Amino acid sequence: MIGINENFLKLKAGYLFPEIGRRVRAFKELNPQAEVISMGIGDVTQPLAPAVIEAMHRAVDEMGQQETFKGYDDGGIGYEFLRRAIAEHDFQARGVSIDLDEIFVSDGAKCDTGNMQEIFGLDNVVAVADPVYPVYVDTNVMAGRTGPAGESGQYEGVVYMPATADNGFVPEPPSEPVDMIYLCFPNNPTGAVATKEALARWVEYARANRALIFYDAAYEAFITDEAIPHSIYEVPGAKEVAIEFRSCSKTAGFTGVRCAYSVVPKELKAYTSTGEAVEVNPIWKRRHCTKFNGVSYVTQQGAAATYTPAGRKQLQQTIDVYMTNAALIRKTLTELGYEVYGGVNAPYIWLKTPDGAGSWDFFDRLLKEANVIGTPGVGFGPAGEGYFRLTAFGTPENVKEALERFARL
Amino acid sequence: MIGINENFLKLKAGYLFPEIGRRVRAFKELNPQAEVISMGIGDVTQPLAPAVIEAMHRAVDEMGQQETFKGYDDGGIGYEFLRRAIAEHDFQARGVSIDLDEIFVSDGAKCDTGNMQEIFGLDNVVAVADPVYPVYVDTNVMAGRTGPAGESGQYEGVVYMPATADNGFVPEPPSEPVDMIYLCFPNNPTGAVATKEALARWVEYARANRALIFYDAAYEAFITDEAIPHSIYEVPGAKEVAIEFRSCSKTAGFTGVRCAYSVVPKELKAYTSTGEAVEVNPIWKRRHCTKFNGVSYVTQQGAAATYTPAGRKQLQQTIDVYMTNAALIRKTLTELGYEVYGGVNAPYIWLKTPDGAGSWDFFDRLLKEANVIGTPGVGFGPAGEGYFRLTAFGTPENVKEALERFARL
Repeated sequence: MIGINENFLKLKAGYLFPEIGRRVRAFKELNPQAEVISMGIGDVTQPLAPAVIEAMHRAVDEMGQQETFKGYDDGGIGYEFLRRAIAEHDFQARGVSIDLDEIFVSDGAKCDTGNMQEIFGLDNVVAVADPVYPVYVDTNVMAGRTGPAGESGQYEGVVYMPATADNGFVPEPPSEPVDMIYLCFPNNPTGAVATKEALARWVEYARANRALIFYDAAYEAFITDEAIPHSIYEVPGAKEVAIEFRSCSKTAGFTGVRCAYSVVPKELKAYTSTGEAVEVNPIWKRRHCTKFNGVSYVTQQGAAATYTPAGRKQLQQTIDVYMTNAALIRKTLTELGYEVYGGVNAPYIWLKTPDGAGSWDFFDRLLKEANVIGTPGVGFGPAGEGYFRLTAFGTPENVKEALERFARL
Repeated sequence: MIGINENFLKLKAGYLFPEIGRRVRAFKELNPQAEVISMGIGDVTQPLAPAVIEAMHRAVDEMGQQETFKGYDDGGIGYEFLRRAIAEHDFQARGVSIDLDEIFVSDGAKCDTGNMQEIFGLDNVVAVADPVYPVYVDTNVMAGRTGPAGESGQYEGVVYMPATADNGFVPEPPSEPVDMIYLCFPNNPTGAVATKEALARWVEYARANRALIFYDAAYEAFITDEAIPHSIYEVPGAKEVAIEFRSCSKTAGFTGVRCAYSVVPKELKAYTSTGEAVEVNPIWKRRHCTKFNGVSYVTQQGAAATYTPAGRKQLQQTIDVYMTNAALIRKTLTELGYEVYGGVNAPYIWLKTPDGAGSWDFFDRLLKEANVIGTPGVGFGPAGEGYFRLTAFGTPENVKEALERFARL
């Protein structure tokens, strides 16, 4: 008799964004005239950069000619031209040396952060911030690394580290030993960033406890403060304890194109139950090559174009559009009396809901009265209750219009 | 202390194709002048169809304009235009009714067949043919559904069903109860197909034992015999017991473009340890949306173009090229005295190695003496020892040249 993986039955309700989609569809059905503006799901609105478009057209043409046609990406870990550009521009340029066989090109940081846990044992204790990007937790629930959820929505066995205004939304390492630590900076959803000193404390903790850090740096391109590290590997010793995730989704508008990568350093070790050290890089490579078959050649050529001089300039222009949005959101909402965080080194603004309203109540009110969609903070964890996430990814016109509606609330 | 998933340490040697790659690279380094022809890894050589190229260019242009730019594929299960084309052409046209929300578009059948096991319990007993596509077994080893490998390379706890010349390479259902059954027809590696009657016996077995069939139909487009089913759902009752996998990789030359889909019928149930029935479709949807973020819009437009009248005609022409190769390989090798199977309804030819040579010995000899790459049958399981797989995906010129070298062996 075919048995279901009962861990899936522990998952609380729907995944956050489908639930938002459901409520928005229901609202639109009842209010077909309403001009709804989304500042909710972190999806981009600016088109792909001309350099990317050009590279993708060229790649499509190559795929149409026998002489230049490309089949499987050999090994499925990404073409060398792309991994070389990544190593040079994302790491060497910041003084970090990453070998090409430490880079695994994939179709998304969501996929990578979700899949990476699979190569580690089920007895590891998971630590996440609260609030947190739900994928880190849900994929560990599915794998069986947690107990059932309590009433607050938190799962037994997971160590939640509150990220609050008091600690600047950057938790300190816990006093108890944990094994798998998920950190995301610039942070989704709070928009907070970690200083090099804060990251160094985490690296030190991981080295002392032989813990592993899953470092999600999907939003590093939005950092404006020069002192803030873009990669955890800027901290000495981090290669022995950290896997890093990067993505073209927000950096280059690839949410509908799909390209990302993970860095799994060769220094990184995990341990068998008898304490024997095992290299993680070949284990992930085996997993990656067995369950994945590479990213579209057309997409990889598009991604490589983001590293050319023209591509980099164009990307920066798009990022500037979003960060101008972020600055306007911060300024306007602050003037309207909201308590506002983030939006300086990240495309996310994290605000306290007015009058102590619940996150979903504020979501429903904002949708109904202003026809604006945001993301309820509680969707990211109990410590997010009473908070609300806005993204800066809208068009400048929509952001302006949405802020005018906020003013009329 | 971070613990490794020790199941990964049970995996035997490298995944088959990386090992082939390793041997070929070593040979080429020693023999840089050799003109090596690959009939090994099942990669295609014909360029994408003009209709697909045109659709992809159009989609790239859309991504470059704000008005037509596409971000996340909502829900990540595939655009409706593509799922509608799939339902109509791949199923309705053969008298099978599949709802749009039973179709999950993905980036590869390898990914899907590898990931699907994850939503089922670890106590399920897995049954596979021997020889078998390694991904079915390896992903179950990684998940922990097997014991260690024995000397033959077979894993404890897996039920292996020999596919031999005696049963026409189509195993009958086992006498013992099994829970997760992987079937692949047209078969990789043997090229065998299952009649409707043979499939009906499997469906009957699965219904009687509440087992689940993972039906890999990635090669259905190569079926030439009109009596052979393209989908397991052509067998009445199969929707209650089978998940089907399809792919554009070989059908449309998408090995470097990445598009596939799974069908998870709403009738399908799995069971909790207390015997409660659970619908599988929403569980897979949850998994898919949590760990995957959709296929590139450009790729989906390309895939949809394969269902247009022009696209279908062009695809058939490419398939005809490969099947003409297959017929020539069969004819020539038969004349040379080889015992040859497959190649009639499948792009794979399965031949007995001459003089009882081991599969890897024949691989090395063929590489060294004829500079032709094939795939050792034993790489697909112990019953494949003494067999060898050739693919028909080469260019007609290369196939002809390779066959001349066979004649000189």
